[in-house]
Order: sequence, then C-alpha cells, then structure tokens
Amino acid sequence: MKTRVVVTLKPSVLDPQGKAIEGALKSLGLEGVASVRQGKVFDIELAGVEGEAADRLLREACEKLLANTIVENYAIQHD
Amino acid sequence: MKTRVVVTLKPSVLDPQGKAIEGALKSLGLEGVASVRQGKVFDIELAGVEGEAADRLLREACEKLLANTIVENYAIQHD
Repeated sequence: MKTRVVVTLKPSVLDPQGKAIEGALKSLGLEGVASVRQGKVFDIELAGVEGEAADRLLREACEKLLANTIVENYAIQHD
Repeated sequence: MKTRVVVTLKPSVLDPQGKAIEGALKSLGLEGVASVRQGKVFDIELAGVEGEAADRLLREACEKLLANTIVENYAIQHD
C-alpha cells in the first residue's frame, strides 16, 4: 500500500530556506511568485497494514520521527 | 493562487536518506513499513498568474531551480 506523508512548517514559523528560493526564482526573472515555503515529503510503502491500522502507524511515525510537531504540521495521504 | 510542487527522486535512483529513515522507523518498532523514499515539497503562492501561464511559470521554476531533472521528477499540483 503506497502512502505519502507531507511535512510542512507551521504558518507562524519563519522559513528562511523558502525565502531564499523565492529570491532565487525572482532573480531568475520568474515574475508572479509571491511566496515559497519548503517542506518534506515521504513516500512510504506499507506491507500487511491497511485502513485504520495504517493510519495509526503513519501517525505514530510522524509523531516519533518524521515531523517535529512543535514547529511542523503533517498530512497523511493515501494514494 | 496556491500551488504545490513535489520533487521526488526517480525510481531508479538510490535514496540512502530514505533507507536511513526506513531503518529508524523499524528500530522504533513500527512493523509494516516496507520502504521509504524522501522528497521535497514547495508550497508556492502565485500572484497575478493563472491557468496556463501559471503552469508554464511553475514548469520553468522546476526545470531551472527546484528539481535536478537528471535524477528527480517533479509534479505540479494546483489546490
């Protein structure tokens, strides 16, 4: 079972890396970019786990390892 | 206009970082994780650009800066 976890900085947290990318895009002449924020994505394949158990497993993975929940949000997507 | 770009390693490219995360999840006792691959996500806000022009702009941003198209794929998502 293929799943995806997206980890992004909370909106209130500054993102200097995103700011740098935003500046780089503008200096490349790409007008129209208002803001950029960078995050991480984890494509996780599960074996022998389905439905609610899969959800619970992924939430635990996020809380324990993939996300720093003090400054980051995570979203779990099932393909 | 909010858009999201997801950059992932091509399937044929080794991902030692993903492997390390996979190992860490398993050593945390999370059974059922078969594989992990890590990628990047960019939440990009556009101003004054819509439709096809937005698509063109984002493709150019990916080709020039956000993705290394030799080893990475990118996907553009409009919210």
